[in-house]
Amino acid sequence: MSKATLATHRIFTGKVLSLDVDQVCFPDGSTGELEIIRHPGASAIVPFLSDPTGDDPQLLLLRQYRYATDGYLYEIPAGKLDPGESPSACAARELREETGCTAARIDHLCTTYTTPGFTDEQIHIFLAAGLTQGDAATETDEFLEVHTVTLSRALAMIQQGEIRDAKTALGILYAAGFKAGY
Amino acid sequence: MSKATLATHRIFTGKVLSLDVDQVCFPDGSTGELEIIRHPGASAIVPFLSDPTGDDPQLLLLRQYRYATDGYLYEIPAGKLDPGESPSACAARELREETGCTAARIDHLCTTYTTPGFTDEQIHIFLAAGLTQGDAATETDEFLEVHTVTLSRALAMIQQGEIRDAKTALGILYAAGFKAGY
Repeated sequence: MSKATLATHRIFTGKVLSLDVDQVCFPDGSTGELEIIRHPGASAIVPFLSDPTGDDPQLLLLRQYRYATDGYLYEIPAGKLDPGESPSACAARELREETGCTAARIDHLCTTYTTPGFTDEQIHIFLAAGLTQGDAATETDEFLEVHTVTLSRALAMIQQGEIRDAKTALGILYAAGFKAGY
Repeated sequence: MSKATLATHRIFTGKVLSLDVDQVCFPDGSTGELEIIRHPGASAIVPFLSDPTGDDPQLLLLRQYRYATDGYLYEIPAGKLDPGESPSACAARELREETGCTAARIDHLCTTYTTPGFTDEQIHIFLAAGLTQGDAATETDEFLEVHTVTLSRALAMIQQGEIRDAKTALGILYAAGFKAGY
């Protein structure tokens, strides 16, 4: 609840998200009704096999089944925060569960609202450098393959529309831009 | 409905979004229940005042009230598709309504799923070049100011966490990278 909340009506409480319809006081004093998806937040991680500042470094991409898109998407490892879990611990856990890898270094890149018109979900995007391979441990409703691509190939996949997931395009473009000295 | 949908249960139909709980057949033949936000999709547009390939070009950023974030975000103009409206027409309309500007040129940059774990929402991101100023016509529940910044300042705002909206960071990084010759 924020100070702008006049009333909140819980429509649905689910495993992943909840839906509220709130009576809201806007900045000019007018009022209205808004539909809000409440979400615990998520972390994602751009997994570089080696030094991300090296010449065209390699990274891991997942090809993952997404029911909401009626097919498969290329994505970086990601998932929602467990209760009390820090964003960096979540990123390291999702990297380990989805690729089997642990990272020598994990750096925070950015934290953004995924779609602030209707949800409070934030995603914390990290960069992993120097991966060590172990065993993956995906959850029962996750269907994914792990692919290795170069950064230049990943950028071409964004430009050609093969990467169609916002956090993945944002994380890779951020890492590439950061490397280029923004 | 996709071929993976075994049953769908509409929980809520709203002004902006709808919520379904679906019984789903996963790729391995197992089944489960998923919460899905159905959304008509949206367009967003990175509005360059002049030639975006020029030396440190200027662009417009909105500072917009977002109830879901309990405050204000810097964003590019954006909004959901009207029924039957094309993504490019929506982008041009949102640019006109939120900034008062029309563009000499509008190019498609990318189309991404905002958060495919729980919604089918896609956002179509465009670039506008060569703006002509007119009168803005914001909707009654929109509260925003229009700011002019240079591209280098916008990139610094992403890196410093002042821009915290995913479509905005993605659109600006995409446009900056494209300009840099990705």
